Amino acid sequence: MNGKNYMSSSIGGCKITGGILGKYQKILKERAIPYQWEVLNDRVEGAEKSGAVENFKIAAGESEKAYYGTCFQDSDLGKWMEAASYSLGWNQDTDFQKLMDQIVELIGRAQQKDGYLNTYFTLVEPGHRFTNIRECDELYCFGHLAEAAVAHYQATGKTRFLEIMCRYADFLCDTFGDGEGQIRACDGHAEAELAFVRLYEATGEKKYLEQAGFQLHTRGSEPYYYDIEWERRGRKSFHPHLQGERPSEHKEYDQSACPVTELSHPVGHAVKIGYLLAGMAAYSQYTEDKAMYAACKRVMEEILSKQIYVTGAVGTTRHKEAFTKDYHLPNDRAYGETCASAAMAIALRRMLLVEPDAVLADALEKILYNALPAGMSLSGDQYFYVNPLEVYPKDIEADHDYDSVKAVRQKWFACACCPPNLIRVLADLGEYMYVFNESELYINLYAESETDLFWGDSKKVRIKQITEYPYDERIKIVLECVKDMDVFLRIPGWCADGILYVNGEEKKVKAGGKAHYEKIHLEKEKTEILLEIKLTPYCVRANPEVKADAWKVAVMRGPIVYCAEEYDNGKELFSLAIDPIEGFEVQKDPDLKIPILIPSKGYRGNNWKDKSNLYTNYFEDFKKTPIKLIPYAMWGNREKEIPSEMAVWLNVQR
Amino acid sequence: MNGKNYMSSSIGGCKITGGILGKYQKILKERAIPYQWEVLNDRVEGAEKSGAVENFKIAAGESEKAYYGTCFQDSDLGKWMEAASYSLGWNQDTDFQKLMDQIVELIGRAQQKDGYLNTYFTLVEPGHRFTNIRECDELYCFGHLAEAAVAHYQATGKTRFLEIMCRYADFLCDTFGDGEGQIRACDGHAEAELAFVRLYEATGEKKYLEQAGFQLHTRGSEPYYYDIEWERRGRKSFHPHLQGERPSEHKEYDQSACPVTELSHPVGHAVKIGYLLAGMAAYSQYTEDKAMYAACKRVMEEILSKQIYVTGAVGTTRHKEAFTKDYHLPNDRAYGETCASAAMAIALRRMLLVEPDAVLADALEKILYNALPAGMSLSGDQYFYVNPLEVYPKDIEADHDYDSVKAVRQKWFACACCPPNLIRVLADLGEYMYVFNESELYINLYAESETDLFWGDSKKVRIKQITEYPYDERIKIVLECVKDMDVFLRIPGWCADGILYVNGEEKKVKAGGKAHYEKIHLEKEKTEILLEIKLTPYCVRANPEVKADAWKVAVMRGPIVYCAEEYDNGKELFSLAIDPIEGFEVQKDPDLKIPILIPSKGYRGNNWKDKSNLYTNYFEDFKKTPIKLIPYAMWGNREKEIPSEMAVWLNVQR
Repeated sequence: MNGKNYMSSSIGGCKITGGILGKYQKILKERAIPYQWEVLNDRVEGAEKSGAVENFKIAAGESEKAYYGTCFQDSDLGKWMEAASYSLGWNQDTDFQKLMDQIVELIGRAQQKDGYLNTYFTLVEPGHRFTNIRECDELYCFGHLAEAAVAHYQATGKTRFLEIMCRYADFLCDTFGDGEGQIRACDGHAEAELAFVRLYEATGEKKYLEQAGFQLHTRGSEPYYYDIEWERRGRKSFHPHLQGERPSEHKEYDQSACPVTELSHPVGHAVKIGYLLAGMAAYSQYTEDKAMYAACKRVMEEILSKQIYVTGAVGTTRHKEAFTKDYHLPNDRAYGETCASAAMAIALRRMLLVEPDAVLADALEKILYNALPAGMSLSGDQYFYVNPLEVYPKDIEADHDYDSVKAVRQKWFACACCPPNLIRVLADLGEYMYVFNESELYINLYAESETDLFWGDSKKVRIKQITEYPYDERIKIVLECVKDMDVFLRIPGWCADGILYVNGEEKKVKAGGKAHYEKIHLEKEKTEILLEIKLTPYCVRANPEVKADAWKVAVMRGPIVYCAEEYDNGKELFSLAIDPIEGFEVQKDPDLKIPILIPSKGYRGNNWKDKSNLYTNYFEDFKKTPIKLIPYAMWGNREKEIPSEMAVWLNVQR
Repeated sequence: MNGKNYMSSSIGGCKITGGILGKYQKILKERAIPYQWEVLNDRVEGAEKSGAVENFKIAAGESEKAYYGTCFQDSDLGKWMEAASYSLGWNQDTDFQKLMDQIVELIGRAQQKDGYLNTYFTLVEPGHRFTNIRECDELYCFGHLAEAAVAHYQATGKTRFLEIMCRYADFLCDTFGDGEGQIRACDGHAEAELAFVRLYEATGEKKYLEQAGFQLHTRGSEPYYYDIEWERRGRKSFHPHLQGERPSEHKEYDQSACPVTELSHPVGHAVKIGYLLAGMAAYSQYTEDKAMYAACKRVMEEILSKQIYVTGAVGTTRHKEAFTKDYHLPNDRAYGETCASAAMAIALRRMLLVEPDAVLADALEKILYNALPAGMSLSGDQYFYVNPLEVYPKDIEADHDYDSVKAVRQKWFACACCPPNLIRVLADLGEYMYVFNESELYINLYAESETDLFWGDSKKVRIKQITEYPYDERIKIVLECVKDMDVFLRIPGWCADGILYVNGEEKKVKAGGKAHYEKIHLEKEKTEILLEIKLTPYCVRANPEVKADAWKVAVMRGPIVYCAEEYDNGKELFSLAIDPIEGFEVQKDPDLKIPILIPSKGYRGNNWKDKSNLYTNYFEDFKKTPIKLIPYAMWGNREKEIPSEMAVWLNVQR
C-alpha cells in the first residue's frame, strides 16, 4: 500500500505567495506568531496567563517563580515552536531565527540528566512521572516538542533541538515497551505516535518507528493499563471531571475499547482521535501494516460521511469534547474544537501521503478554508476554541447548555491548546499542497505559489501556480520537470463544470460527480496547464437523518462556506430564508480575497407588528429582504468585542 | 381587590361526570391513586423505591428499617393524601376512607412531643432541625402535609389530621418570626405560605394567616438568612450540586433577590416560583396587600407572555430546573417539569379567586388539558418528570445535553415529586371550574358536571353542564339559583366564532379577540344557556423572538394542543411539514374523547434515495404524505416501552 513512497514538499520548498492562504500566512508572520510568543511569555494585558515559557526557565533553575498552568502547558510552547519553524520556510528573519535558537537552548537546559523533559513533572510532581499515563499527557507533551524539533531541523538543518528530543525519545523507548520492567502503555492522548514517526523520518532510526508501532498496538490491549495505574494511585484522577470514573468504563474517551486496527467509528474525544488517525497514517507510510491503514481510512470515511459539519469541523458535544452519534450535528451547540480541525487536517495530510485520494483532499481543503481559519481573527490575535455554526448571544446568556460557546474570539485561554495548533497547520500549508514520488505528482490544493520538489538531493519538479483561486476561477499551473511524470489534478466533488487546457489543447474534464484526479502525462520539460473551475455559488442540503439542518441550506462557492452575520443582516437571523434555486450575486471584495454573496431572493419571515402575545394564530408573512453572506471563516471580525449573531444554515423559502 | 370574597365549590360540591376531565378522574380512581399508594409502600416491582410510608412507621417506632429517600420524602405522602382526600369528593369508597384514617393516625404517631413532624430530621439528622432552611425543605414538607390535612377535613369533616398539623403549625409559628429568639427566615422552597393560608381558611385562626404573611415578607429580606445559616454550617451544603455555592450569589434560585412584592420577572426554579405565586395569591385573598397581588399578577403576566410553552409547560432548562430568559423556549431540551405545571395550575386557581380574569382562566385551561396530563400515561401508572415538546430518542442517546429527557414514562422516580403533584391537581378539578360569591358566578371551565354551590350553609346555585367539550362544540348549562346573580361565561381567546342562547334567545358573542367573560344576568330561578364554541382546528405561530419555533406551527383545536408521533408518522418527524392554511380533517375517536386531526396538506421533505453522502447539492423535494396528529397530552401511550419520536411544532410548507 505504501510501496509508492510518497513525499510532500520540504519546509520552504513551497512558497505560497497569494490568495487567501497567502493572506493567512501573512497574518501569521505579521501578528499571530509574534503575538502568541508574547502571550506564552505572559506579556499580553488582559489575556489569560500562560506560564509556558516561564515554566521552562523555572525547570532550568533560572527563575524563582512558581509553575503555572495545567500538566500539558509544555505542549503550547512545542506547537508554537513547530509553527515558528515552518514559518522559517517563508520568513527568513535572522533575528527571529536567533530567538528560536535561544528557545531551543532554554528547552535543553530544562531537560533532566536522564533525558526526561517535562516541566510539570519536574517542578510540581517530581516523584510521579508516568503514574497517570491516561490523563497527564506526558508523551503528548513529548510529542509536540519532538514535532517542533523535527520541523526546526527540517527548516534550518540545525540539529540541536533534535538532539535534545532524541535523548528524551531514547529514554522513552527504554521506558515503554513489552519488555521486563517496561511500561506497557500508550498515552491517553494520542500524539507520540506521529511524533515518533517524524523522528524516524528525520533520523532514520528504526527504534523510533518501532516505538510508534508499540504505542499504536498497545492502545486498547489487555490488561487494561489505565485501570492498573488508577488502582495504584488509590483511584484518584488528575482532572476533577474524571474523578470517580473507573477508566475501563470509559474506554471510548481515548479510543481504547479495542485495538486501533479494529476501530470502525469515530468515538470519544475528537482531538485525540484526530491525532490517533494521523499517527496511524504516518506509521502506515513506512510499514506494511495494511490493517492499520484500513482502520484509519474506515474511521475517516465514517467521519466524512456521518459526523462532520459542513464547515469541516468535528466534535459535536462539549461533554468530553467528543464525537456523539451518526448525523447528530447540532449547529448551536456544535463543539468544533479548533484543535480537532487542526488534527483532522494533519491526519488527512498524512493519509494523502499513504494513498492520494481526491475525496480526502476535498475534505482537507474544506477544513483549511473554513473550520480551521475560523478559529483565528483576521487580526491574528484573537481565537475561538469552540466553533459553532450558529451563534445567538441570547441563548448563550440564557442557557448553561451553551456554556462552552463564545460569541467573540478570545485573547487566550486557560486551556490554550487551540491557538498554537491552528498556527502550526497554517504555517505549514506549503506541505499540504503536493504529494509526489519519482513518477507521480498529485496537486491537492490550488493557491498562488512557487514550489521546488526534490527527490533525494536533486530537484525534480518546479511548479508555479498563478491563480486567485478560490476568488477567481482560473488556475494556471506551469510545471517544469526533469523527466516524464504523471500529474494528477484534483477536480473537486463540488465542481459542476470545468475546462482543462494542457499546453493550449483542450482536454475534457469529468465534473459534477465524486471528487477525482484528472491525470495528465507530462513528457515535455515545461508544461502549461490552465484549469478553469466554475465557481458558481450553490446551496447544499444535509443528509435526511440530520435533524439540525432539515429544511435548510448552507451556501457555498467552491470550497468556501458562507454565513449570515448580524452585522449585515440584523438580529434574529433564524427568521431569514433564501430561495436556493434563484442564485446569487457575487460581489468581489479585493480586500477580503473572497467574494460576498447576495441571494437573488432573500426573505425575512416572522414579522409582527404586535409583539405582546407569545402565541398567535398563523398568518403567512415573509417579505423580501436583502441578505448579505460572508465567508464563514471570516465571521466576527467587524465589531470584534460585541457578541452578535451568526448562522450558516438558512431556512428555505420558494 | 379582594373585597369580593370569591370562593370555589367545596370538595365534592362539583362532580365531573364526563369528557376528558372526567376520564382523567376515572384513571385516578381506578389506577393512579391506588397505584401511587402501592409505590409509596414499596410494593411495585421495578419501580424506584420510595420509603415514604415506611419512614413514618420508623419515626413512629413501628419499624426497624432504615430511613429511605431524600430530605423531602414526607411530601410525597402529603401530596398523595391531598389527592386522596379530594377524590373522596367523587369516590365514596368506605374502605378507602378507613385506609386514609389509618394513614392519618400513623402520621400522628410520627409526630414529636413538641409538635415537630418530619421523618428525615427525626431519624437521620435529629440534632439539625432548621439548620438548612434554604435547602432541606422542612416547611415545604410541613406545607404539603398541612394541605392534605385541610383537604381531608374539607372532604370528610374529620378533624384528626387537622389537629395534628395545627400542633405542628403552632410550633412553627412560635419558631419562625421577627421576635427575640425566633428564626427570621422562610423556606428555600415556597409552599408553607399557601399551606398557612389554607389552615387559616380551615380554622379561622388569624395567626396562621399572619405566619403566611411573615413567610412571604421575609423572602428576599436582609440580613440574608441563607448566608448566615451557611456560615454556621461551615459552608456545607446538603445537595451536592449546590456545594461550594455561597447562597447570596444565587438568590434567583429561590426568588430571594428582592422582596416578593418587587418581583417583576419569572426567575429561578420553576416549581418554587409557581408555589410562591400560589402563596402570594392566596394571601392576597384575605388581606389588603395590594402590592402582593400586583407583583403576583405582574410575574404571571410575564410568564404567560414570554416564558411559557404552547402546551402550558414552564421551565426551560435542566440547570437548576429553572426559567431562563424571555423567548428562550427550546422544544427538545424543554424542562416543563410536571410539578411546575401543577404549581402553575394551583397558582392560577388561587389568582382567579382574587380577581377573575379570562386570560388567566384560558392559561389554566391550557395547562389542565395539555402540559399537566401529559405527565401521566392513560394507564395511570407511568409518569413524566420532564415534558419536552419534541422527543428524538437518537438525540437523547447521543448527547448529554438531553440527560434529563426521557422518551418513555417511568414507573416512579428517585425524586418523586411529580406524580403525586399531578394527581392532587387532577383530583381537585371540581374546585377549578367555578369562582363565585353572593352575586357573581364565573364559569371558568366547561365539562360535563353537576355542581351545588353553597354560600355559608345554604345552597345558592345548582349548575348542570351537559357537554362533550372540548370534543364537541355545544355546551349546555342549566342553572338554578335562589336569587338574582350575574353569570360570567369565559369566552376563550382562541375562539374565533361562537353563538350564545339564553333560554332560547340568541345573544351576540364577541369572539376572535382577547379572552373575556360574557355576562348574563340571571333573574329567573332556572336558566338554560347554550354556548356553541366553534372548534375548527387552527395553527399557531410563536412570537418572532422565539428562535425554537421559527418557520413552524403548532396545531390546536380549542384548548387542545396536538403533536405528531412516530407511531403514526414514522421516524424523522422533523422532515414533516404541513400547510397551515388548508385546514384539517377532524376524525372523532369516541374512545379517546378527543379527535384526531389529519392535515389536508401534509408533506414529507428530505427524501433521498442515496444516503451515502452527508451533504449534497440542493434539490427541491417534498412529497405529499398523510400525517396524523394526536393530542399532545396523550402521546407515548401506544407501545409505551419503546422510545419513539414526538414533535409539537411542525414545519410550514405551502
